[in-house]
Amino acid sequence: MGELLRKAALAKAAAVELAGKSTEAKNEALRLIANQLQAEKNFILTENRKDIDKGKEAGISSALLDRLALSEARIDDISQSLELLVELADPVGETLSTIERPNGLSIQKVRVPLGVVGMIYEARPNVTVDAAGLSLKTGNAVLLRGSSSALFSNKAVTAVIQRALEQSGLPKNAVQLLEDTSRETAEQMFRLNEYLDVLIPRGGASLIQAVVEKATVPVLETGVGNCHIYIDDSAQAEMAVDIVINAKTQRPSVCNAAETVLVHRHWAEKHFPSLAEALAAKNVAVKGDERAAQMDRRIAKAEETDWKTEYLDLTLALKIVDSVDEAIEHIRQYGTKHSEAIITETPENVEVFFAYVDAAALYHNASTRFTDGFEFGFGAEIGISTQKLHARGPMGLEALTTVKYLIHGSGQTRC
Amino acid sequence: MGELLRKAALAKAAAVELAGKSTEAKNEALRLIANQLQAEKNFILTENRKDIDKGKEAGISSALLDRLALSEARIDDISQSLELLVELADPVGETLSTIERPNGLSIQKVRVPLGVVGMIYEARPNVTVDAAGLSLKTGNAVLLRGSSSALFSNKAVTAVIQRALEQSGLPKNAVQLLEDTSRETAEQMFRLNEYLDVLIPRGGASLIQAVVEKATVPVLETGVGNCHIYIDDSAQAEMAVDIVINAKTQRPSVCNAAETVLVHRHWAEKHFPSLAEALAAKNVAVKGDERAAQMDRRIAKAEETDWKTEYLDLTLALKIVDSVDEAIEHIRQYGTKHSEAIITETPENVEVFFAYVDAAALYHNASTRFTDGFEFGFGAEIGISTQKLHARGPMGLEALTTVKYLIHGSGQTRC
Repeated sequence: MGELLRKAALAKAAAVELAGKSTEAKNEALRLIANQLQAEKNFILTENRKDIDKGKEAGISSALLDRLALSEARIDDISQSLELLVELADPVGETLSTIERPNGLSIQKVRVPLGVVGMIYEARPNVTVDAAGLSLKTGNAVLLRGSSSALFSNKAVTAVIQRALEQSGLPKNAVQLLEDTSRETAEQMFRLNEYLDVLIPRGGASLIQAVVEKATVPVLETGVGNCHIYIDDSAQAEMAVDIVINAKTQRPSVCNAAETVLVHRHWAEKHFPSLAEALAAKNVAVKGDERAAQMDRRIAKAEETDWKTEYLDLTLALKIVDSVDEAIEHIRQYGTKHSEAIITETPENVEVFFAYVDAAALYHNASTRFTDGFEFGFGAEIGISTQKLHARGPMGLEALTTVKYLIHGSGQTRC
Repeated sequence: MGELLRKAALAKAAAVELAGKSTEAKNEALRLIANQLQAEKNFILTENRKDIDKGKEAGISSALLDRLALSEARIDDISQSLELLVELADPVGETLSTIERPNGLSIQKVRVPLGVVGMIYEARPNVTVDAAGLSLKTGNAVLLRGSSSALFSNKAVTAVIQRALEQSGLPKNAVQLLEDTSRETAEQMFRLNEYLDVLIPRGGASLIQAVVEKATVPVLETGVGNCHIYIDDSAQAEMAVDIVINAKTQRPSVCNAAETVLVHRHWAEKHFPSLAEALAAKNVAVKGDERAAQMDRRIAKAEETDWKTEYLDLTLALKIVDSVDEAIEHIRQYGTKHSEAIITETPENVEVFFAYVDAAALYHNASTRFTDGFEFGFGAEIGISTQKLHARGPMGLEALTTVKYLIHGSGQTRC
């Protein structure tokens, strides 16, 4: 039997055992993992060094090397994030509803683990711990498939986690790492319905697209955000500029950063120079429609593709619009249903924007950058779902659970 | 543009409009449809007759003809089911939670429609009205793809629905029927992510399998139920027999009917004849393991495939087991995670059965036949989900909704 099937089967057997474990046992395991990561820091750093050296030889970018590199401080952060998970309420076991039927049946709806989570992710080795921690906290086993560039680090971290699990009351096999990082094996994993209950891709658009395209295992899709900010006629000038600058420049590489700003022409007539100045001061390259380009000669002419692009960089598309309806129509055409904001002092326009824009998170007078599990107060984040089924927007621990109906009777039969 | 893309686009445009409609407007439309079905009974029956005649010519089975046939009484039932939908609470607009963050952001989680529902179904024309009613009640547009054998009926019913919608405040295009019933077009529909938010197959195992295998649109999988009843050592004899007979024979063709009974050997030693007699009296053919076959000579020897088979007929697989653990292990191996029952007077065995059997519905001392949206008190049923994501078990109206986060700020930016 190949590695994939063998490890998937081990994870599935562990999942059965895990489903019956108490919150205390799960938390104790998380604490043991945090401690073991500390105790084996040197081992992890030595193995991580091998990935770094291999990456340098292969000539990978310094940005990628930085994502790959661990340090004592980063391992401390990773351990600490496990300690924070311990503090969170366990969603498993929660009774969501109890229905008493006229025939005497009592129907209880309770939260249970999903079973086995398949996680496919890119270079960062901290995701290995993160995925293991979130899965264990919710009583799930996990089958991890990281990238080949982080294989030494991922193997080391997984070995450390398994050593900690051996001391815990949880099954050691609950966390499995695939050492075969070929694309063929990943694609087999997409279709491993017999063993996997959900597949979570964490990485770039092409990975997510491949999973959505090819997977038969149910997917929790995360990722792409072509987010808009609409500055309405009545928007406060300073607030609007602050929010645009924050949403575009505070961390341009993330999915909740803004990519297009839509500006009402009346607002633009009064306040456009302050917005253009602020963007220029932050070195943001602006691509605008004709009207915008006429207002400021630093603005390059936008092409149709600009409205569709998630730049993930200090580039911003900008369009002058005549109304909130035109803004909504533009977002409907080009948005990815992630995060969309309206800056306005007109309550009716907030209402229409909130009712007619279809997205996970809609903001009034705030930056799109808040779409995040921690910013929403969930205490953890599995990712930001861009799908509509199961979970939408920032996913907390509940996204890794499902339900069971438990029905107590006294001999009821159906007529 | 082909029919599929044209109608999908019409449905999508209608969905945008529908999302803003009030509960009153939606209920009024459901009432108008119910009335219009009554007013145009003769037209519908005439068109239905064409399908029946065509079916007879083609030599389809009398069971299929029966599923296809409408009558005045059936149209009355269909109208009445729409009136019942009117009475149900509208899940759309419900606030699920409100989070006030320390930074002053107020984050409201509200229920919203999914958008456009794609429904692929088999011969029964009543499903056309059912799917339209459930979709409209939840503010969704629907693109229907029925079978060619019901095309005259489906076209008639859809025309009647659209005529009613024209008198209502809802968009007429909210209900679309594909007249092209080719497999190629259905497979295009599986991958119409730009227009469809969810795909619901209602029909046989092969349809559902094809959808799961090929769809890129998110699927709500319904259907297959290889359901078990485990009769424990301490089960009351009469109750156990009643439940088995009910679960197997009350309506053998449905997914929540029992297919395998697992009997503890101690119970079998005392009570097996009464069970065997009752099954024989109902003409149930029993296929048993060796120990069962030795207990009653009417019992044929079961093959490995019998444990896997959803008979949907008066056939039952039966196995003698030594413990609740053996029963759980058997269900783990062969079950389809639909509905599983334990008959026992031993609370600890209920506990272990409920904890370790992974299924949508688990029963203690009741028939598996209760897994049903109406029996659960939901007042409506989209289908019975056999998946773990989004919805599990009987799906009520909520399964056709998703959420939006609405965030109110006063200029917040992220640091």
